[in-house]
Amino acid sequence: MHPASASHRIRAAYARIETTDRPEIWITLRPQADLEAEAATLDPELPLAGRLFAVKGNIDVAGLPTTAGCPSYAYTPPQDAPVVAALKAAGALLIGTTNLDQFATGLVGTRSPYGAVRNAIDPTRISGGSSSGSAVAVALGIVDFALGTDTAGSGRVPAAFNGIVGLKPTYGLVPTEGVVPACASLDCVTVFARTLPEAEQALAHMTTAPAATTPPPRRPGPYRIAVPATSQLGAMDKGWPEAYEAAATRLASAGAQLLPVDLTPFTEAAAMLYEGAFVAERYTAVGPFIDKDTPDLDPTVAAIIRLARDLPAHRLYADQARLAALRTQALTALGDADALLLPTAPGHPTLAEVAADPLGANARLGRFTNSTNLFGLSAVAVPAGEVEGLPFGVMLIGPAHADERLARIAALLTPPTSVAVVGAHLTGEPLNPQLLALGARFDRTTTTAPHYRLYALATDPPKPGLVRTTAAGDGAPVEAELWRLPPEGLGALVASLPRPMTIGSVELADGTAVPGFLCEPGALEGAVDITAYGGWRAYRRG
Amino acid sequence: MHPASASHRIRAAYARIETTDRPEIWITLRPQADLEAEAATLDPELPLAGRLFAVKGNIDVAGLPTTAGCPSYAYTPPQDAPVVAALKAAGALLIGTTNLDQFATGLVGTRSPYGAVRNAIDPTRISGGSSSGSAVAVALGIVDFALGTDTAGSGRVPAAFNGIVGLKPTYGLVPTEGVVPACASLDCVTVFARTLPEAEQALAHMTTAPAATTPPPRRPGPYRIAVPATSQLGAMDKGWPEAYEAAATRLASAGAQLLPVDLTPFTEAAAMLYEGAFVAERYTAVGPFIDKDTPDLDPTVAAIIRLARDLPAHRLYADQARLAALRTQALTALGDADALLLPTAPGHPTLAEVAADPLGANARLGRFTNSTNLFGLSAVAVPAGEVEGLPFGVMLIGPAHADERLARIAALLTPPTSVAVVGAHLTGEPLNPQLLALGARFDRTTTTAPHYRLYALATDPPKPGLVRTTAAGDGAPVEAELWRLPPEGLGALVASLPRPMTIGSVELADGTAVPGFLCEPGALEGAVDITAYGGWRAYRRG
Repeated sequence: MHPASASHRIRAAYARIETTDRPEIWITLRPQADLEAEAATLDPELPLAGRLFAVKGNIDVAGLPTTAGCPSYAYTPPQDAPVVAALKAAGALLIGTTNLDQFATGLVGTRSPYGAVRNAIDPTRISGGSSSGSAVAVALGIVDFALGTDTAGSGRVPAAFNGIVGLKPTYGLVPTEGVVPACASLDCVTVFARTLPEAEQALAHMTTAPAATTPPPRRPGPYRIAVPATSQLGAMDKGWPEAYEAAATRLASAGAQLLPVDLTPFTEAAAMLYEGAFVAERYTAVGPFIDKDTPDLDPTVAAIIRLARDLPAHRLYADQARLAALRTQALTALGDADALLLPTAPGHPTLAEVAADPLGANARLGRFTNSTNLFGLSAVAVPAGEVEGLPFGVMLIGPAHADERLARIAALLTPPTSVAVVGAHLTGEPLNPQLLALGARFDRTTTTAPHYRLYALATDPPKPGLVRTTAAGDGAPVEAELWRLPPEGLGALVASLPRPMTIGSVELADGTAVPGFLCEPGALEGAVDITAYGGWRAYRRG
Repeated sequence: MHPASASHRIRAAYARIETTDRPEIWITLRPQADLEAEAATLDPELPLAGRLFAVKGNIDVAGLPTTAGCPSYAYTPPQDAPVVAALKAAGALLIGTTNLDQFATGLVGTRSPYGAVRNAIDPTRISGGSSSGSAVAVALGIVDFALGTDTAGSGRVPAAFNGIVGLKPTYGLVPTEGVVPACASLDCVTVFARTLPEAEQALAHMTTAPAATTPPPRRPGPYRIAVPATSQLGAMDKGWPEAYEAAATRLASAGAQLLPVDLTPFTEAAAMLYEGAFVAERYTAVGPFIDKDTPDLDPTVAAIIRLARDLPAHRLYADQARLAALRTQALTALGDADALLLPTAPGHPTLAEVAADPLGANARLGRFTNSTNLFGLSAVAVPAGEVEGLPFGVMLIGPAHADERLARIAALLTPPTSVAVVGAHLTGEPLNPQLLALGARFDRTTTTAPHYRLYALATDPPKPGLVRTTAAGDGAPVEAELWRLPPEGLGALVASLPRPMTIGSVELADGTAVPGFLCEPGALEGAVDITAYGGWRAYRRG
């Protein structure tokens, strides 16, 4: 990004911070002038030049306090965590540190003396946590990407609730030096972004490890996706089981094979994360500080960590043995599947619901995420549509070092776009092969809403121009075909569009609107109104 | 694909065969009625339901003659080659068998008694071979994908010359049972398609192997691409070195790291393919038939294979040892690179040039492709722009089982599209963050050609409508920003476009045309002409 463009981007971000008015996102927000100074001397050739990012408040940034969501715990590190240093070296500009569930203990985003982080879309609901501020900063378009951490699901649940992408890379791939540990043997640094490519490009610069890694073997052929019976998923919010099934169907439509899987070992291991002895590792990390009982401790977080002090080591041995057995069962259940598809969370509570039952609501949220790090797996959380106006998200979970493959499978979840064609792209017409070459598949024949007129334009080859009328009763329905195609196909179609054709929103008979062929105003000069034929093919037949 | 839609598609294909008039593509074309009957009973849920494909004439199709480009050699197999059977089982419909350099011996596409296959774009030039008919059938939009084979480059050179994608999978991944061998220890079945996703989806169904394969290890971080100095590439057609360098630059812009590499071991091994003893394997395959000297043998092919009869085995031992040493050198040179980027061929000869020097022209074509199978590597050939109106193609070559990763890197070569914005998406305007979220990067500020007028529309938020004038001298230049974004970003932008905004081709001050924001004709009713301000921002400033 050119320095001038980066500077524009910085101003836009601070303007957005102002207009969105979510002060609880930030623990430390850097002065705008500091970023503009950095932008002025930026090398535009750097791979992430001028991308804006935020960092969860439990990750060291040189010169800013590392709070882990607890002011009395804060220290000011002399140097960046290696992951932050690597992103800065790649040209990304850090805007500040973000709020979190204190000591990254929670999946709710409310457990912080800096305030409960409100959801980006519905401020009466939780943001999800513990990487709450990072997720909302991305979802509101303030930053391009943001770092989180994930032990029980902290890098994925907030992605789902705010309609963004969360990559939880394989344990050890991204260095955790300079990160306040939650459970050191499980913690992963994660990244949030609005699109998969943006998240993946950031992730490519987040590792400083020189050693090669080996992706897991796979059986050649279509992707094989393990999908548990919806009955095994337990109680979910209204409409969520259907949204989950729709995501599975979308993968199948994109060519993947769906395989049944028994989810029991995953959900049993998930329950062990807080109920078993593993929570003692949180006491190892910050227990002595919790015991000082400073007044800014979150009472729920402090209670959880305090209780872990007296867990006996023999119970940890027993739990580790039980977990190893469950892991074997889980991997056997997955067999040669490339990935397991799960909802990211079972539901999306309001701030009030979490306040009424802080432990119960939180425990429920981790049902699908808790087992991932216990089993040493990798995961990608992506948006998968909406339910009643709120984002719905799913995860793809796979073996260690399947990160790249999971992202590739997740890309298949991108809903295809539609395009309405009314002329030369109709089946049997000369430009129809162009649609097919772009990966388009025929959906259905329909008509536009009765608010259009069709003109025969003076183009070569002959094409019609569809025009929306402005006065009621002036239009008529026009025959249209609806084709489904991947977004890159629609982009390529638009990129090759010759004058005077245009693409805009076209209203169909059923009242829905899809992108469709229209034309420039000037094309109508001397064009013949052929609306009475009801469509281009009828007109061509004469 | 729905049966009715598949039936439309079949009719379109046969119409296209008629209008394109390239009878030399086909060795056996199935009757249209046979395909329509198959389409009528097609299970629309099959993953490749209704995709049309063609098969190179050296691959068995039950009931059709397998000719290998030599009528006197032909036999009619009772069953499909496993790769053909697998595609049919996935719902793909076979349209016929295609012409080839006889016995898959050649990279030109002219060595066939069925006629020289003319290039899809420029019929005075060669199609490339040996998978000539398959490549041209795809490039002309007759079929959705087609099978080739690749020993020295036969699945890649024709892809480059016809502007399409050719995947040359890892040796052994796709079964070669039922394929007439060229060099059995090197032959790979390949697939051509117009887009990478289409080719990859077909490839996913081309293997029947149940065994898992392990992708090669990689160093985490951005893709690392080995790029030889252009001086090492030798003589190339005019403009081709620059087109190659542009492809390397495009990968770097997409975030890849470019690494220097010494190409010597690759080009030395390439020269050994026909000059050394390896050609004896072709005699092993079809020598006894060639010795019968039937009149329909291609004289060049027959001469090559006949000469191989007297190659002594001790020379093969020596060549194998030399090759093993070159392979070690080559892999050392690649180091931890994910892929080697090369032009697919050094140039694109005319039919006349090949006729004048059949051996020399052919040998030159294999300079970059010949070593791939000798070294046991995988490769993906993709279009990378045009030079003087003809396609230019590059290859990404990687270790065995890097197929999926190479396709992913090749996708980065997709040129970004541009979009011209003149209103609410301008830098600093309210909808600018939407562009950034779609992965757009600012390119430059410019103006439209002086043929436009700008109107303030009655939209909320306020937006301008750009309109091309129809009478000369009526328009003026309008301030525009040019943004570059991936095709899927442009597709997503179009998919979310609200009425009355449209996107069509906008002419810029320098005479080039890019997709840009326009508006529906009806939006101009009551809109205020603000052209005199020179642009939206000047108008908004008042």
